[in-house]
Amino acid sequence: MRTGIWLIGARGSVAVTATVGAFALRARLVEPTGCVTELPEFGPAGLAGWSELVIGGHDVVTTPVLKKAEALGAAGVVPARLVAALAGELAAHEDDLRPLPAGGTQAETAELIAADLTAFREVHDLATVVVINVSTTEPAPQPHPAFADLAALRAALASGDAVLPPSALGAYAAFTAGCGYVDFTPSTGARLPALHELAVEAGVPYGGNDGKTGETLVKSVLAPMFALRNLRVNTWSGLNLLGGGDGANLADPAANAAKVASKQRVLSDVLGYQPQGTSRIDYVEDIGDFKTAWDLVTFSGFLGTGMRVEFTWHGCDSALAAPLVLDLGRLTAAAHHARRSGPLPELAFFFKDPLGCTSAGLSDQWATLVAFASGLST
Amino acid sequence: MRTGIWLIGARGSVAVTATVGAFALRARLVEPTGCVTELPEFGPAGLAGWSELVIGGHDVVTTPVLKKAEALGAAGVVPARLVAALAGELAAHEDDLRPLPAGGTQAETAELIAADLTAFREVHDLATVVVINVSTTEPAPQPHPAFADLAALRAALASGDAVLPPSALGAYAAFTAGCGYVDFTPSTGARLPALHELAVEAGVPYGGNDGKTGETLVKSVLAPMFALRNLRVNTWSGLNLLGGGDGANLADPAANAAKVASKQRVLSDVLGYQPQGTSRIDYVEDIGDFKTAWDLVTFSGFLGTGMRVEFTWHGCDSALAAPLVLDLGRLTAAAHHARRSGPLPELAFFFKDPLGCTSAGLSDQWATLVAFASGLST
Amino acid sequence: MRTGIWLIGARGSVAVTATVGAFALRARLVEPTGCVTELPEFGPAGLAGWSELVIGGHDVVTTPVLKKAEALGAAGVVPARLVAALAGELAAHEDDLRPLPAGGTQAETAELIAADLTAFREVHDLATVVVINVSTTEPAPQPHPAFADLAALRAALASGDAVLPPSALGAYAAFTAGCGYVDFTPSTGARLPALHELAVEAGVPYGGNDGKTGETLVKSVLAPMFALRNLRVNTWSGLNLLGGGDGANLADPAANAAKVASKQRVLSDVLGYQPQGTSRIDYVEDIGDFKTAWDLVTFSGFLGTGMRVEFTWHGCDSALAAPLVLDLGRLTAAAHHARRSGPLPELAFFFKDPLGCTSAGLSDQWATLVAFASGLST
Amino acid sequence: MRTGIWLIGARGSVAVTATVGAFALRARLVEPTGCVTELPEFGPAGLAGWSELVIGGHDVVTTPVLKKAEALGAAGVVPARLVAALAGELAAHEDDLRPLPAGGTQAETAELIAADLTAFREVHDLATVVVINVSTTEPAPQPHPAFADLAALRAALASGDAVLPPSALGAYAAFTAGCGYVDFTPSTGARLPALHELAVEAGVPYGGNDGKTGETLVKSVLAPMFALRNLRVNTWSGLNLLGGGDGANLADPAANAAKVASKQRVLSDVLGYQPQGTSRIDYVEDIGDFKTAWDLVTFSGFLGTGMRVEFTWHGCDSALAAPLVLDLGRLTAAAHHARRSGPLPELAFFFKDPLGCTSAGLSDQWATLVAFASGLST
Repeated sequence: MRTGIWLIGARGSVAVTATVGAFALRARLVEPTGCVTELPEFGPAGLAGWSELVIGGHDVVTTPVLKKAEALGAAGVVPARLVAALAGELAAHEDDLRPLPAGGTQAETAELIAADLTAFREVHDLATVVVINVSTTEPAPQPHPAFADLAALRAALASGDAVLPPSALGAYAAFTAGCGYVDFTPSTGARLPALHELAVEAGVPYGGNDGKTGETLVKSVLAPMFALRNLRVNTWSGLNLLGGGDGANLADPAANAAKVASKQRVLSDVLGYQPQGTSRIDYVEDIGDFKTAWDLVTFSGFLGTGMRVEFTWHGCDSALAAPLVLDLGRLTAAAHHARRSGPLPELAFFFKDPLGCTSAGLSDQWATLVAFASGLST
Repeated sequence: MRTGIWLIGARGSVAVTATVGAFALRARLVEPTGCVTELPEFGPAGLAGWSELVIGGHDVVTTPVLKKAEALGAAGVVPARLVAALAGELAAHEDDLRPLPAGGTQAETAELIAADLTAFREVHDLATVVVINVSTTEPAPQPHPAFADLAALRAALASGDAVLPPSALGAYAAFTAGCGYVDFTPSTGARLPALHELAVEAGVPYGGNDGKTGETLVKSVLAPMFALRNLRVNTWSGLNLLGGGDGANLADPAANAAKVASKQRVLSDVLGYQPQGTSRIDYVEDIGDFKTAWDLVTFSGFLGTGMRVEFTWHGCDSALAAPLVLDLGRLTAAAHHARRSGPLPELAFFFKDPLGCTSAGLSDQWATLVAFASGLST
Repeated sequence: MRTGIWLIGARGSVAVTATVGAFALRARLVEPTGCVTELPEFGPAGLAGWSELVIGGHDVVTTPVLKKAEALGAAGVVPARLVAALAGELAAHEDDLRPLPAGGTQAETAELIAADLTAFREVHDLATVVVINVSTTEPAPQPHPAFADLAALRAALASGDAVLPPSALGAYAAFTAGCGYVDFTPSTGARLPALHELAVEAGVPYGGNDGKTGETLVKSVLAPMFALRNLRVNTWSGLNLLGGGDGANLADPAANAAKVASKQRVLSDVLGYQPQGTSRIDYVEDIGDFKTAWDLVTFSGFLGTGMRVEFTWHGCDSALAAPLVLDLGRLTAAAHHARRSGPLPELAFFFKDPLGCTSAGLSDQWATLVAFASGLST
Repeated sequence: MRTGIWLIGARGSVAVTATVGAFALRARLVEPTGCVTELPEFGPAGLAGWSELVIGGHDVVTTPVLKKAEALGAAGVVPARLVAALAGELAAHEDDLRPLPAGGTQAETAELIAADLTAFREVHDLATVVVINVSTTEPAPQPHPAFADLAALRAALASGDAVLPPSALGAYAAFTAGCGYVDFTPSTGARLPALHELAVEAGVPYGGNDGKTGETLVKSVLAPMFALRNLRVNTWSGLNLLGGGDGANLADPAANAAKVASKQRVLSDVLGYQPQGTSRIDYVEDIGDFKTAWDLVTFSGFLGTGMRVEFTWHGCDSALAAPLVLDLGRLTAAAHHARRSGPLPELAFFFKDPLGCTSAGLSDQWATLVAFASGLST
């Protein structure tokens, strides 16, 4: 099944790492390490093969993908030899990228985005296209009455009002073009009642939010450990140091707040209470793409005895996120093909702040995901 | 259901912490933090209540339990105020402890042990007694033909040969007295074909081995994280620094080797391959009862990008082990009552080196345990 | 030489730990671990012996010192057995403490404070008294013209204006009473030109600021390591998690800012440039008196190769600060006796943000301190 | 002053990193980060300039230096762009390298080595040559009577006996050729009374042993911190994980023992007592050239309060060692020029296990080094 993945933020680190990887997998230059959907449990799901995937996307910046890939090679995010081997394909990839359109109104912008999506689908003869937001994190938007239902939203847009944050506008355009949508960021994306209505009306699925790639991933396995052993977590404090584009954006307090809230949700979900402590994010330019996160957990055991565990995570966010973007594209496309519409809470395994009421423990999320994938092929 | 827990090593840190805790729980002086069987999932299992549990035990040392408890209070392992509040009961507890018997032959010793168990059951009018080994770790024994079947073992013992390591002799005596047996240490315990035969013949269940209380517990949740995300673990190296009685014993290279092997099994079980690196144990007297373990994990992600996570675990082994000892006593007694005999692989959640072929991931083990407990009450 | 140490904040954790310790040292119940002035290098300086030290102080709170000491004993900051052994002396110590006076104007308050100091000196027949501020950190004050010279300050006070922050008012009162003054906090203390004039006029010495007890102490030895090896520090980021009274106060952003600035000064002083990164302080109530600080240092070596070091410091601030308070009392008293007046930059060894232009490396500061002490006895 | 540095182990990681660096510094392609002798304190010493340094060396392996440099570039030890820029010089460098000679007897081997050294000096018209051992660590040799004095050693060698370990034979040959000698490894090197006699007779200086590049460097600044603050270190335990050639060699227990002893000496030297705990070295192939060391220090403060600090060092040993090799070459050459002969204890700053009785604290060692360098120019 020929499948399109359309990346919003297609020239950023995550998108270009995913693109280099998809090309390298197609050319059988690498093993699919980090790709969840390559585990044996997903064999029966009949997901799109690497040669059936086509990547396109929007971006507001214009850096050539090859140049960005070379920079990622120099930074150790992707192997420089792969970038060299794939230079021709990365240059040709420019044909599938478009500048993010900007119409006179949001309604016009959405039409232009949808037109790009439709053209991408037709040019490549794709059975389905999934739009995935991997652009930088937005601040939380001001509430607006048009968020609450689709008719009100359509009226507001028709009147020329700019009511949607960019990520939600992207979801709106994706749905109107008959595409699935996944938000890999903590931005609003499809999480508005009006957009939910639209997705159901259009018969398309959506997923999100905020890819779980580092500290929160560890939390999602450590927190259940304490819960299952009936140990009481007293404090959980952390500091995330990161540079790169995402880090710079998070130096903005509003974006930072959105991200931090997303990072703490897992604890109260798993434990049933909120320990003391917070998770901080600091931008340190020199750290670059390799994030360092430190967490301290203090807990009480039998008879109240105090104990503690610390961990330091030193990971490359782009390299952790990129294969998940490909996984989400494959799975959401298959869900669309299987006529699923509306939210996909079964994708919680991938997200810090998943849609719907689901367990926040990674193992439970895994079991749910595998069952979901198995169900798609029948 | 009045239930006995008979501790081999009843004057050691783990046993005395468990005893203080059991008394404190009975007196409603503390919350059951760290007791897995107090989680809501175990409500329907109808396990013995705190007022129905009676603790007894053997030891080769003669330190009064109250004195040991006071030492644990001074070291911060148990609250000193609890020891003071329970001083009367801890002194009275001496009546339920016996010196570990030593007959002229192993056969005679086993008879003396069994007699103590039977007397304990009768004096306290107990429906069932579970023997739990919490004494120090033995070196692995030399193989012996009598291990292979019960007839050969009985013949060897009858001839006066000392063929069994102490932990296995304890299991032998427990089974002949109609008691369940759990080995909380990495020692041989019930893990001999001859003893398996005996347990089945006697209609009693057994469990083990080696309580999972620290570094290995963390491994059992972190290793699945890498596996589920299809990340390749390249190395996993660790150092455990511990003092106390258990630490001193592990300074013996043979006991150390037994323990280390037990600590590494989880990785190959979960990952399907053995990463480079080893887990070391060093005895550092000054560290005392609070163990510090450091682990470094290096792993490869998408396109081979190298990353790493470190953790430091600072835990009190006795405080982590004691509630599990009570859990295992309650669960094994219930299994005995439900006419289960032979190995209980469903207890893998509690052990580093569990009996039978089971998943090494903590979440899978949890699901198995809950199902097991639910089945006991029907 | 009978010497008085007058503590502002005399019922707080640092003061009470220092008091318990001073009494225990006088009674020869403990070794002088942590007391710098007990090292052999200070033998010739002829400092006041433990039996010659008398402690008094002010506080705004009224918790009995014995009760506070018992709470510190329960929290593991001081040994509970010492508090029990010294209960009588700690109760009697109440006679040497006074509520912090509050006059109708700052001028009146200063007079009342000075009167308490004079009375303390006379009652105990003390050769000298050193006032040491161990109360909570103040926000930085608004600049005021009266800070600039003594005549202006006296005029402002005489007119009834409240121009001084509390710590500076304490220094003012100390100087007018002929006492030395040390600020163990990052508050203003004696660091105003007008107060400098007053100290010189009164012939009394002063020292400060902000005792160096944890993360910054480690920085003051690690930063020189990088400098001496010509390694380039790129980033130095840290997170301090602390509870207790000091932590709660630092949850106030203004006090936090004062403390953070003080913690970063050492890096630019030692390295000659400011690496990227910041040092954060978070209040986590459950952490209590035992602070945990984590620092990440990234650096470049030969040919630009990137490397890193992390450290975690788990220290009890009160136990680290208390002996230094006694050291500073002894040394400042000896300096007063040796007719030193004005700032004592030679005490930089003890402080995060020392007075005067001195090396920020701990070893240089040590050499300076030893020379200073040797000079006092001649 | 034209100066030669002759490296034993000239095709190993440390030597090739030093060579690439020396060439890059001569070509002004890089900053001298990590070169201690480039700090302003060494300006007056009149050390050999980068354009005056000539590197040569022996090795038993035959890998071309350029190929090794490319491998180091791929591993991130040196920048790949530097290797590319210097490819011509690295290829030409082969002319200055010789296979390590092997005569029929040790006496003959020593003559062949000395002949290579003399030829190197003459071909390049060098004022002085310093031999530096950067080959792999040897096990400690069996004691031999010929170690004790030069006459006995000469007699043993003349009789055809092979009495010297390879590092000592190198020192012997260096001295007979009139060259200074530095041992950057924990091997025997020049540390035999007989070789001391020979160095004095030949009028040449020598230095060593065991370059201080990682965990021990941190120890040499942290241990004095505890000492100066009168804090009692109870335990100091560490684990070093390293791959690469040095790591593989240290998997040999005898070499490992030599290295571990060297790493612990600093603690007893600085503290005046030996804390509990040991420093372990484990070979983990996958770790490669970037070593990770973790240390736990537990200590007691005022009134015995227990505290702790942990650090993790993640460093590239070759990148840390290489500039020190150049520093030692420059300094030893200048000492030779200044007619110093015999041991150079003033170089202790560079070594884990320095010659002579010197302070083990890094700051004291620094002061000694700067004074030494200043004295050389007069």
